[in-house]
This record gives sequence, C-alpha cells and structure tokens, in this order.
Amino acid sequence: MRTYLECIPCFARQALNVAQAVTDDPEVQQAVMRKVLREIAEMDLSLSPPAMGQFIHRVVRQTTGNSDPYHEIKETFNQLALSMYPRFKRRVEESADPLEMATRLAIAGNIIDFGAKHSLTKEDVSRTLAEALETPLPPEPLGTFRREIADAASILYLGDNAGEIVFDRLLIEKLPRERTTFVVRGSPVINDATLRDAEQAGVAGLVEVIDNGSDAPGTIIEDCSAEFRDRFAEADLIIAKGQGNYETLNETDLPIFYLLKVKCPVIARDIGCPVGSALLVDGRKCAGRAKR
Amino acid sequence: MRTYLECIPCFARQALNVAQAVTDDPEVQQAVMRKVLREIAEMDLSLSPPAMGQFIHRVVRQTTGNSDPYHEIKETFNQLALSMYPRFKRRVEESADPLEMATRLAIAGNIIDFGAKHSLTKEDVSRTLAEALETPLPPEPLGTFRREIADAASILYLGDNAGEIVFDRLLIEKLPRERTTFVVRGSPVINDATLRDAEQAGVAGLVEVIDNGSDAPGTIIEDCSAEFRDRFAEADLIIAKGQGNYETLNETDLPIFYLLKVKCPVIARDIGCPVGSALLVDGRKCAGRAKR
Repeated sequence: MRTYLECIPCFARQALNVAQAVTDDPEVQQAVMRKVLREIAEMDLSLSPPAMGQFIHRVVRQTTGNSDPYHEIKETFNQLALSMYPRFKRRVEESADPLEMATRLAIAGNIIDFGAKHSLTKEDVSRTLAEALETPLPPEPLGTFRREIADAASILYLGDNAGEIVFDRLLIEKLPRERTTFVVRGSPVINDATLRDAEQAGVAGLVEVIDNGSDAPGTIIEDCSAEFRDRFAEADLIIAKGQGNYETLNETDLPIFYLLKVKCPVIARDIGCPVGSALLVDGRKCAGRAKR
Repeated sequence: MRTYLECIPCFARQALNVAQAVTDDPEVQQAVMRKVLREIAEMDLSLSPPAMGQFIHRVVRQTTGNSDPYHEIKETFNQLALSMYPRFKRRVEESADPLEMATRLAIAGNIIDFGAKHSLTKEDVSRTLAEALETPLPPEPLGTFRREIADAASILYLGDNAGEIVFDRLLIEKLPRERTTFVVRGSPVINDATLRDAEQAGVAGLVEVIDNGSDAPGTIIEDCSAEFRDRFAEADLIIAKGQGNYETLNETDLPIFYLLKVKCPVIARDIGCPVGSALLVDGRKCAGRAKR
C-alpha cells in the first residue's frame, strides 16, 4: 500500500510522541522532529507507510542513543498478556471451534500497537478481547483459511507486536507446529516483537522462530535477509498480523491471510471496513489489491 | 507565544485539510504538503504559531491559485450568525448586566475558528452560545475590563473570524462607539474576518473599521501596516479576540484583554486553563507572560 497524504500528520505525531517518550531534552526532541520532517517532505509516496516508520524510528534511536525505546512498554504488555493467557486458553479449549476462537483472539491482540496508537491501557486490551469473545468470524474466508492450514506443507506466521504475540500463541497452538515458523522483526522498532518477545511469550518453545533481518515495522521484502526471503517465497501459506504487514505486503499475489484490527482511517478506506474492525482477510481477494 | 513541538503535527493537519478542501488535484495537494513540511522543518520555533499559519496559507493560495479558500465558509458562518443575532441581541438587552452578557457571547463566538478546528457545525455554534448564556464571567477581571472601557479615550478591538464578528457586534454595541475602532486582517487567511465581513456583519456601520495590512492569522506587529502600528501603540485599551491574537501578542506589556475560547492543548497549557474554557484574560496578569 502506498503512503497517502493523510499519513503525514500521523508520521509527525508519531515522531513527536516517541521523541517525548524517550527524552526530556527539548534540543534532542527538536532534532528528531526536524530530521523526520525533512525526510517526509522528500518522501516517495509510492513507498508504504512502514518505510517512513522505519526511518522515523531509526532517527529516534540514533538521535537519542536509545536502541530500544519501547523496551518497557514491550515488557509491560508481554506480562499483561501472559497474565491473561490461561483464561483465554480455557476459552479456546471450551469453544465449539477452537481454531476459530483462537483466530479471533489473535486478531484482537493486534490492538497492542504503539505505531497506530500513542497510548493504550490494560482496559483497552481487555475490552477488545471481550468484544472478540462475542463476535464470531464470518464463515468465509474462515473456511478457506482452515482448509489451507490443513493442506499447507509450510506455514509462515509473520508476527507484529509484543504483548500481541501471547495471543498469537493461542492460534499457533492450533496450527500444525512442525510445519509452522513464526517470524519476528530483525531488531527493535516501535513495540514490534523480536526474538526476546517470542521467548517471553512462550512461542519459541512451540514452533521454529526466525527473524526477518529488518528493522521496518512491517515486512519490506527487499529489506529482509536472504534467508527470510527464501522462506517467504517458498511458504504454502502466510499468516500476516497487523497493519504494518498488510501495508507492506497487500500488493503481492502470494497466499497470505491478514489478521488485523483496523486502527486508522487510511487503512479503513483502503480495506473497505471501518476503524475498529477485526479482520481475517484473504489477501488474494482483498479490496486493497484493486488499487495497485 | 513561541511555537511548541506539539504544534507541528497540527500544522501538517491544517495544511492537509486546507489543501484537500481547495483542490481535488492530488499533485497540487502534494506540492502544498511538501512545501509546508520543508518550511516547518527549518522553522524558528521562537516565532509564534500564526507565523507558520501565515506561511501555510500563503503556500495554499499560491499553489492552488485560490486567493480566498475559505470564502464560502466565511459567507455561511456570517449568515448563520446574522440569523442568530436578533435572538442574542434580545438576551443582551434583557440581561441585568448587558456589557457582561455581550462579553460572554463575543467570547463564545470565537468557537468559529477553522484554524484550530477542521470542521464545525451549526450545532457546535449553538451549543457554545447556549453554554455562554448559562455561565457568568468571574467578577475579576470583568470589573477592571468595565472600568477601562469607561476610562479609555481610544479602544482598539482586534477581531478574529468571520461569523464570530457578528457576536463581536453585540459587544461593540455596548462600547463607546466614537472611541472604538474595529480591526480586521489585511487580506484573507483561513476564515479570519476582513473588511468584507465587517460590512456583512454590520460592524462597519457602527464604528470605524480599519485593516491591519497583514495576512497572518493573528497580529504580528512587525508585519502590520504603519498606520495600524501607530494606532496599536496609542490605544488606551486593546480588546483582542481569539487564539491567534493571544499567541502573537501575549508577550507585550500593553493594556490588552484577550477574549477567547481555548481550542487546543498547547494554548490550554500556556494559559493554565482546560480546552473548552471561555476566557476574559487581563493580558498584564496572565500566566502566558510568565513564560517569556
């Protein structure tokens, strides 16, 4: 997905929020803002929004000297999600359709996104999960998703955020584990999950976990490692979590299912569903692809 | 008042809104955004926010070839306010303290501000005026304001927006007219009032009206005409409407009363009152001055 002009005020807001969160020094905050604004002013809008996100968060890390500004937020939400895990695991097991329930909860977990949101409370997470318990997924594309999971010789599960990854675990536990690989970002960016989070969440003990070699808050294929690119090209089924993975992959023709909460009006318009929607989208059929 | 980093995403949002309102051509919208972002990136933050507002709206006018993008909005809100005028005029006359009631309503009229807000309905205006009818001004600085109006040999009333100017008229009708001059912007910027609006609102028939020679959405003294600067320096009392006039004048030591609705968190913090507040502020005593 390209970058829209509406993304620009949001980039400025993101840069400001993270600069203010990382340092109290107004000179450093100002330096971050000026660098980011200069870059946005010259940005190639045919690139996806996560390409700018990658740049913004590199500037923040370089300018502040803090290599992982969201470290504490990631810890907090991993712990919160782990404390909720046993309860939701029970709901999955008690469900008439555990795969469907686990998919719902994995989608709901995508609310834990500090790129799209600049603040998030425990209550926001609880409310979103409670909504998921009440809202079944439509029969399609769930039926296709279920069949392709059963048939796929290899499944690549592209994770998104820390905290959220604990809810991904509920779904991973319903996938054929020996055929599934979970992918994290190559290094910290926003609150996106890295290897450390996969370990904390208990995903690393369940399935193979690899990183994609990139610090983009999405999956910019040409920025990823050769190993990841091979695995990506060979996968029979790709499960991609979150807005960033949607924005960077939605123009490919690969067998990808997107699992996401719609958190901004630009994605809502692209995908044709209102902000707040919890979506399982068959990438080969989704509205966004029509805009290529 | 200086520009804060928090103003930056708001500048970007303002530029986007006006570019999209004025043209459907994505190339022109993009050109506006890029020019504005380059300027914000290099902006001297010791300047006030209206200095950037002035630049943004110049870029929009130059790039789109539309010399008055808010023409229709100004017409609409002048007509709306004129249709409400007789009712509120009656409320002023029936009030036990007509000057106080007229001051409240002039402050409430400041809600009609398309710089701080990017959309505004008739209902927003009605609700704000209804609140004003229920909310008396505190005895101070009202008492000082009343005494200085009685004593001043010359009163300069710095208007802010079209529509709002009709509610200013209610207050002007309670001032000593022969000693009062109403000031409008030198040329169109956002929905700020110009001579045309003073005529439409019926203010031009009541008191002398001059323009300040500037296209800033505030009063940047060094950008104003020599005539205005003289009048400004000589006035015994200045009544300054709106955020833009506050942001550009709050560091002066002149006898200025600010009448405004607080519409953004940056002003709210500077002035020490929450967003939504309806304020009559004695400029010689206000919190903002402490921050020089």
